[in-house]
Amino acid sequence: MKNISRDAIAQMGKIERLNLINSCTGYKSANLLASKSVDGKSNVAIFSSVTHLGSNPALIGFIMRPTTVPRDTYKNIKETGYFTVNHITVDMIADAHHTSANYELGISEFDKTNLEEEYKKGIEIPFVKGSPVQLYCKYVNEYYIKENDTIHLIASIENLFFEEELEHKDGWLQIDRGNVVAINGLDGYCLPKLVDRFQYARKEIPSTSFPKK
Amino acid sequence: MKNISRDAIAQMGKIERLNLINSCTGYKSANLLASKSVDGKSNVAIFSSVTHLGSNPALIGFIMRPTTVPRDTYKNIKETGYFTVNHITVDMIADAHHTSANYELGISEFDKTNLEEEYKKGIEIPFVKGSPVQLYCKYVNEYYIKENDTIHLIASIENLFFEEELEHKDGWLQIDRGNVVAINGLDGYCLPKLVDRFQYARKEIPSTSFPKK
Repeated sequence: MKNISRDAIAQMGKIERLNLINSCTGYKSANLLASKSVDGKSNVAIFSSVTHLGSNPALIGFIMRPTTVPRDTYKNIKETGYFTVNHITVDMIADAHHTSANYELGISEFDKTNLEEEYKKGIEIPFVKGSPVQLYCKYVNEYYIKENDTIHLIASIENLFFEEELEHKDGWLQIDRGNVVAINGLDGYCLPKLVDRFQYARKEIPSTSFPKK
Repeated sequence: MKNISRDAIAQMGKIERLNLINSCTGYKSANLLASKSVDGKSNVAIFSSVTHLGSNPALIGFIMRPTTVPRDTYKNIKETGYFTVNHITVDMIADAHHTSANYELGISEFDKTNLEEEYKKGIEIPFVKGSPVQLYCKYVNEYYIKENDTIHLIASIENLFFEEELEHKDGWLQIDRGNVVAINGLDGYCLPKLVDRFQYARKEIPSTSFPKK
């Protein structure tokens, strides 16, 4: 195996280091975060750090660097308190990736890509049309991570929308049924397929698959 | 689409809510965290929240609930300051999942599964043999998330090991070449395959794929 030390990582060129370190932690979630400014301008940006934080209360977290791209997302969330999380499907990947371009503040990526806004009854923040899992989220708190000047933003799930064909009887959403992608590094888009699902692990019994339906 | 409100989520049965909320944020990374107690007992546990935090310095973060399973991992990291992150391959999934069983403190999951310890020169903490990407990490800090009594643990990458066939010239590790899995929810193991990789997004130019090699 190749072995790269901390010092060698520090001495790499910027692009090589970005590619390497972004790809070395494993697959990442692929989400479009949509938001709206107080004066009604929509925004959508790709994020790969949205993570489940807890189920009761239902909380998510994600990492952002507020002083750089994507500034609109942070500004809008702070202004309105709300945003949406939308799973990216395989047919959206070129447009989803393009939302990472460095547009000026106030420019809507909905106008610059084929991504379309979708509005739901009683909710003023847009969702991304065609996304098979959509979360309506409310800002809860943020933790400043001083080690590298990032923010860990915590939000609650206020409403959860999903295509019914994804749902199993025990609540599990099988997201490969919706052709949802995962991200490898900064720019690699991957399509996962379910291999197996396991029962709750018990110490005296070897872990076994779920009974097939 | 099905619409589930915050109140409906709160009123669900515990298992259904765990399955639903754990699967609604998208694919998660699949890693085995290995550690060692000061008296030399190894431990390995599955985590699905390891996330890239920054590249310079190279930092990762993950979420844990220190008062419940997996307590050994947290105790060992606090005692020694070090741990390893090991990507899970498709042939390891039953054993990797079984590390989530509620073993007593001090029991090594390496003894209870087919997972094998691997040691590298100059490093006292075990890696997981056969894992195609392995990170040797050092504890840096932790942030207590008061909203749900969890800890966001921050660590630096001290050494990075990977199979050379994963590496591209620009530093990117193409992890599907190592049959690395992603996790859907609490217990669904998925195998991703690369669909496309895109060039750095520029605002005036539609996003395009990387030139094929």
